[in-house]
Amino acid sequence: MAHIDLPEGLPGIIGPMAFRPETSVHLNGLADALLRDETGITRGERELIASYVSHLNECNFCCKSHSAFAAHQLDDGYELVDAVLADIATAPVSDKVRALLVIAGQVQQSGRKVTADHVAAARDAGATDLEIHDAVLIAAAFCMYNRYVDGLGTFAPPDRADYDGMAQDIVANGYAATAPAV
Amino acid sequence: MAHIDLPEGLPGIIGPMAFRPETSVHLNGLADALLRDETGITRGERELIASYVSHLNECNFCCKSHSAFAAHQLDDGYELVDAVLADIATAPVSDKVRALLVIAGQVQQSGRKVTADHVAAARDAGATDLEIHDAVLIAAAFCMYNRYVDGLGTFAPPDRADYDGMAQDIVANGYAATAPAV
Repeated sequence: MAHIDLPEGLPGIIGPMAFRPETSVHLNGLADALLRDETGITRGERELIASYVSHLNECNFCCKSHSAFAAHQLDDGYELVDAVLADIATAPVSDKVRALLVIAGQVQQSGRKVTADHVAAARDAGATDLEIHDAVLIAAAFCMYNRYVDGLGTFAPPDRADYDGMAQDIVANGYAATAPAV
Repeated sequence: MAHIDLPEGLPGIIGPMAFRPETSVHLNGLADALLRDETGITRGERELIASYVSHLNECNFCCKSHSAFAAHQLDDGYELVDAVLADIATAPVSDKVRALLVIAGQVQQSGRKVTADHVAAARDAGATDLEIHDAVLIAAAFCMYNRYVDGLGTFAPPDRADYDGMAQDIVANGYAATAPAV
């Protein structure tokens, strides 16, 4: 049971978002801006960063949902997602995406862990300033979303199949448009 | 020097926000919704939670700026801010605010660290579900803002006086209205 009295039956972040629409509009807007943009890294790669950071934060709902959103937007689907969650050093991603995942992993620990060397490695692998910015902010934002979801004691459906419908909606329409009417 | 090529001379979060207006609008909107609302805990108390979490995350810019925004909106100003940053167990805040600061400190570590006992203690001290929700989300959001500011290697002006003008603007007009035109 969630820590506060949330609307019944809404998993993960969806319950708190229905509880407090004044903040949800900005949380959904930020997710659309960060995860639906296609400047540089793709939507699938952006969701991969979200899934990886949620995995590091052990946030079941966010890891499962954003793994689904990544898998539905990547050619190699869950096979690539699973490889990234297992080990970013060996996962078959581009050098650029690998360097951005390294930065995201540092941000997950603390913003202060990102060094000039991490950033230089990303730039050497072809990352632009905008891609580095977005990787840092996606990782930082999931340190928020993950804490929001778990800090209120919400529940996460257990199976990958439970996230397929949500993934189809998000891929087709984005975050703000998919949020339940409140 | 910041890790990416940010507009010159803008401290802390202001540089990245000017670099990427597509995300800033949502970051400012969230700050206004969380820190300028006056349902339950006051604006000064909301800023106090932001300052405390930024202190735990060792984010100089956010701690100094939100300490200033808190001090300018609390009767006891910096005296109360300093007492909270020194020790929330002895700071002269209400039992309700103390319990919400305890929850915020747990969220700073991980959402999973918030227990039913922490929430029951806050409720026993008079906190509503909305206040508990907002304390969790303020703490979670500052785990994002802090990582954003430090993950991009921005600079923080050193003196409290450096934050006075910013505080006057924020107190008078809020976050979105104070953001530099980009």
